[in-house]
Amino acid sequence: MCLLISIHNTLLREVDYKLAEQEAKEKRADELFKDFKEVSITEFFRKNKAHLGYSGKVRSLTTAIHEMVTNSLDACEEARILPEIRVDIKELGQEHYKILERDNGPGIPAKHISDVFGKMLAGTKFHRNIQLRGQQGIGISGVTLYSQITTGKPMKIKTSTGDGKVHEIRLLVNITKNEAEIVETKVYDDDWKGTEIECELRDVSYNISEHGPYEYLRRTSIANPHAKIIFVDPEGRKHVFDRTTTVIPETPSEMKPHPKGASVDDILNMAKQTSARRVSSFLMDSFTRTSNAKVEEIHESVNFDLKKNPRKLTWQEAEQIAKAFEKIDFMAPSSEGLRPIGEQQIKKAVLKILEPEFEAVLTRDPKVYSGGVPFQVEVAVAYGGKAGRPSADGTVKSEVMRFTNRVPLLFDAGGCTITNAINDVDWKRYDIKDFENSPVTVFVNLVSMYVPYTSAGKLSVAPEKEIEKEVKMALMDVGRRFQKYNSRKRREIEKETRLQALLKYSTELALAVSKLSGKDEKKILSDLKEVIKKRLRYEGSLEELTPKPKAAKG
Amino acid sequence: MCLLISIHNTLLREVDYKLAEQEAKEKRADELFKDFKEVSITEFFRKNKAHLGYSGKVRSLTTAIHEMVTNSLDACEEARILPEIRVDIKELGQEHYKILERDNGPGIPAKHISDVFGKMLAGTKFHRNIQLRGQQGIGISGVTLYSQITTGKPMKIKTSTGDGKVHEIRLLVNITKNEAEIVETKVYDDDWKGTEIECELRDVSYNISEHGPYEYLRRTSIANPHAKIIFVDPEGRKHVFDRTTTVIPETPSEMKPHPKGASVDDILNMAKQTSARRVSSFLMDSFTRTSNAKVEEIHESVNFDLKKNPRKLTWQEAEQIAKAFEKIDFMAPSSEGLRPIGEQQIKKAVLKILEPEFEAVLTRDPKVYSGGVPFQVEVAVAYGGKAGRPSADGTVKSEVMRFTNRVPLLFDAGGCTITNAINDVDWKRYDIKDFENSPVTVFVNLVSMYVPYTSAGKLSVAPEKEIEKEVKMALMDVGRRFQKYNSRKRREIEKETRLQALLKYSTELALAVSKLSGKDEKKILSDLKEVIKKRLRYEGSLEELTPKPKAAKG
Repeated sequence: MCLLISIHNTLLREVDYKLAEQEAKEKRADELFKDFKEVSITEFFRKNKAHLGYSGKVRSLTTAIHEMVTNSLDACEEARILPEIRVDIKELGQEHYKILERDNGPGIPAKHISDVFGKMLAGTKFHRNIQLRGQQGIGISGVTLYSQITTGKPMKIKTSTGDGKVHEIRLLVNITKNEAEIVETKVYDDDWKGTEIECELRDVSYNISEHGPYEYLRRTSIANPHAKIIFVDPEGRKHVFDRTTTVIPETPSEMKPHPKGASVDDILNMAKQTSARRVSSFLMDSFTRTSNAKVEEIHESVNFDLKKNPRKLTWQEAEQIAKAFEKIDFMAPSSEGLRPIGEQQIKKAVLKILEPEFEAVLTRDPKVYSGGVPFQVEVAVAYGGKAGRPSADGTVKSEVMRFTNRVPLLFDAGGCTITNAINDVDWKRYDIKDFENSPVTVFVNLVSMYVPYTSAGKLSVAPEKEIEKEVKMALMDVGRRFQKYNSRKRREIEKETRLQALLKYSTELALAVSKLSGKDEKKILSDLKEVIKKRLRYEGSLEELTPKPKAAKG
Repeated sequence: MCLLISIHNTLLREVDYKLAEQEAKEKRADELFKDFKEVSITEFFRKNKAHLGYSGKVRSLTTAIHEMVTNSLDACEEARILPEIRVDIKELGQEHYKILERDNGPGIPAKHISDVFGKMLAGTKFHRNIQLRGQQGIGISGVTLYSQITTGKPMKIKTSTGDGKVHEIRLLVNITKNEAEIVETKVYDDDWKGTEIECELRDVSYNISEHGPYEYLRRTSIANPHAKIIFVDPEGRKHVFDRTTTVIPETPSEMKPHPKGASVDDILNMAKQTSARRVSSFLMDSFTRTSNAKVEEIHESVNFDLKKNPRKLTWQEAEQIAKAFEKIDFMAPSSEGLRPIGEQQIKKAVLKILEPEFEAVLTRDPKVYSGGVPFQVEVAVAYGGKAGRPSADGTVKSEVMRFTNRVPLLFDAGGCTITNAINDVDWKRYDIKDFENSPVTVFVNLVSMYVPYTSAGKLSVAPEKEIEKEVKMALMDVGRRFQKYNSRKRREIEKETRLQALLKYSTELALAVSKLSGKDEKKILSDLKEVIKKRLRYEGSLEELTPKPKAAKG
């Protein structure tokens, strides 16, 4: 519908008139710009708490716990420590809680404590092409900020790297400067190692819904079967989510980027940081799968000398390289940096926690999205037992557990690629007639060193075709397995029904034939059973072939 | 389900063994922290483009145009100028476009140009409690960033404040420093006033879907009936979205915060910035609805002297003030800072653009959420005509248009409170049997000086009960109006059907009676029609009462 409409002359005149009238009241640019100023990142997030996941009282509490637990798990994994994490939530008043989180991790070096907890966009993970839960250096400073703006209380940190010294620091954030404001600091001798965080939050509330801390920790335990998590809830109940394996996931390793999918801007940025002296060696050093032979191929499609200093690359030259990357075939990216949970581990956790009647687990082969970013998808479907989510009306609904790099995503399911993929599966085809109202738990873990989140709160995966397709393929695969199981189950039920009918009939038949023929009833019955056994391919013993008494109705 | 499980002894021993084994490989904290560093906000968003709305090729193009147009509309509104905005999109190659956007706004003072386009978190709007489309000082620098990382090309800005000098600047962003890198700057004499931006983007694509620039501008025009928007699409077609009013929306005015909903942290922050010398005058100056009498009331519930210097307020004292705020009754926040579009203006725009068979528009009274943030909801429902969205299969689906402060939200409908409210309405009750498949357009505009967005991309409103409720109430209201219209329409159709049946019957009857009685057939028919007219309360003339010929079937 094109809206090409010519302006009527009279209207034009009216506009001119109004314009003239309004011109007089017009404000000048310098007047409008008198308040122009810069704000700090902390100030930005203070005003936009919702971007960090602080919206809604339950969600805010879960977010804070998520930030702490995520940091603990990452630190332990990198330090090769079997994590033991304790979370205590105490209710101090209405919508007012204290959280204590403690790990047995590597501790934080004294000089970094204030930046870790009090400075946003500071961290160890941002520049590394490595699969970790955290990434941005925002999360834990966000907890300090939220604690401060709701209670005015500093964050209390106790940490030791195991060098015999324990550092205890209480700090706030300076919002305009984006840095920590140390309130108190203490050092004392002790042999302990680890990190303990204590903070107070208001405007939060605790419940046991699927958005609350209990569910968050339960799911964290499923996706991190090597972690022991102890949770003491506000009523003082202790919940132990024990580990089902003692094998620490392999250390995530840094991976060089793959040439496919590298943008011109990426190439230029990397070229600025390389220590290589020639573009040729820079390409081999900085990208994976870029052998001597590949550099030769690249050389043939660019019009400048690859002996050039990489720091002097122009946009046009980098563009030629990017185009050569696109044209040339490279080996697929290695998946060595990817750390899936693994089918065995997921299965153990699912069996222990959901005790399902049926389960199927699948870790797909690594794939790439957006040209060159490797990722991997793991899914599980559990049916029956404790699978699904009991609803208020007593029925069991289906339950979806989304994870990225083993971190549960409890919110923002709506726009998430994982949700889209799940909804896109035609579950009816796999004998799950009414997906919504079935006792089924669907588990999806997306593994990548770079997950494309939609927001700083990292709760929803942005639409990427390749990721959505992989999740769907994986679910269809486990769906087919369920269908097989289900039709086998159905066949067995049918077989059992036929068996029971035949047995009942043969008992009566044996009696009748025995009366007519005078032969031994038992012998006849046994012969009949032999026939039934053959026909139905029954594999049990003959003795078992007696009609079952009807189950008493409760 | 509690997972309190005691650890089995043998497992414990195994754990100890593994722990010992792994201890040897443990990494120390200082090793893990060797890469600890701070990154700039630009670097952060470079890596997390999706937070700014740059995910997906169509969406990225729409996002860039949105940022430019939003800035132009805000500037014109503040400067009291009737906006005339021109957007040209040219295709330069595959997924490679040039955008030119020009306004007749107040221009940008020379000294601020580089910060406006090259520095994130710099702007005029962040600290002001005022209803504007933009807010964060991120959007337009984000366009410079996206242009730079996809094409390496600088943003070109031409601007004049009407002082006879035109400044032309080409700039890039320095990613690590979060500041502009001027490539070229020119000043020349000219009488023009306004701002013109030109940039090149790759990895974007243009289409006419409901997520594309055309739809974005069409909806912008509906919600900004005072703006004239000229759009030249990549095929060179010119679309003019003309203004339907020449009245500029009232200047948004800054509003003082309302005491209800002010957190302790808010009070302390404001106390630091006040020029008042006493807490009592600070409270009256900085908050709305805080009269002398109210300050007296506050005085009675705190244990310190309100003559105190506000800069010396402690958390505990501010907490007492916050508690007093909670306890005391204040007048509801004034809505003077809220700038709804207005029922008349929405109606004009809806009639012009959708030409519906039925429309209902409602601007609700202002309300508050989260204690003290004023907001207002406007809705419209249009039915029939060009309402709804034609789908590929030829049928018409329902169409939802979400707006916040007149800005169309084209993405992330999933988690948005507005969407939730729309889905929550039981449309069947209002005679829209199958909402999804009805020719209906639902328009919702949420107006507030502080919209709680879920992400920096500002496309989705975070869950707030009060907002959701207001949207729902408003929709139910216009829903009832549709129902009334529809049942009247139905009654009229029924009446018409009965009328036609009676007329047909009376013609035959008149003939028969005439034959039997010998009386004049016309007289009898006329008498019969008189009776029908009375019974059906038909108000037309008698001549019109002739049976309609059946419509020919096409």
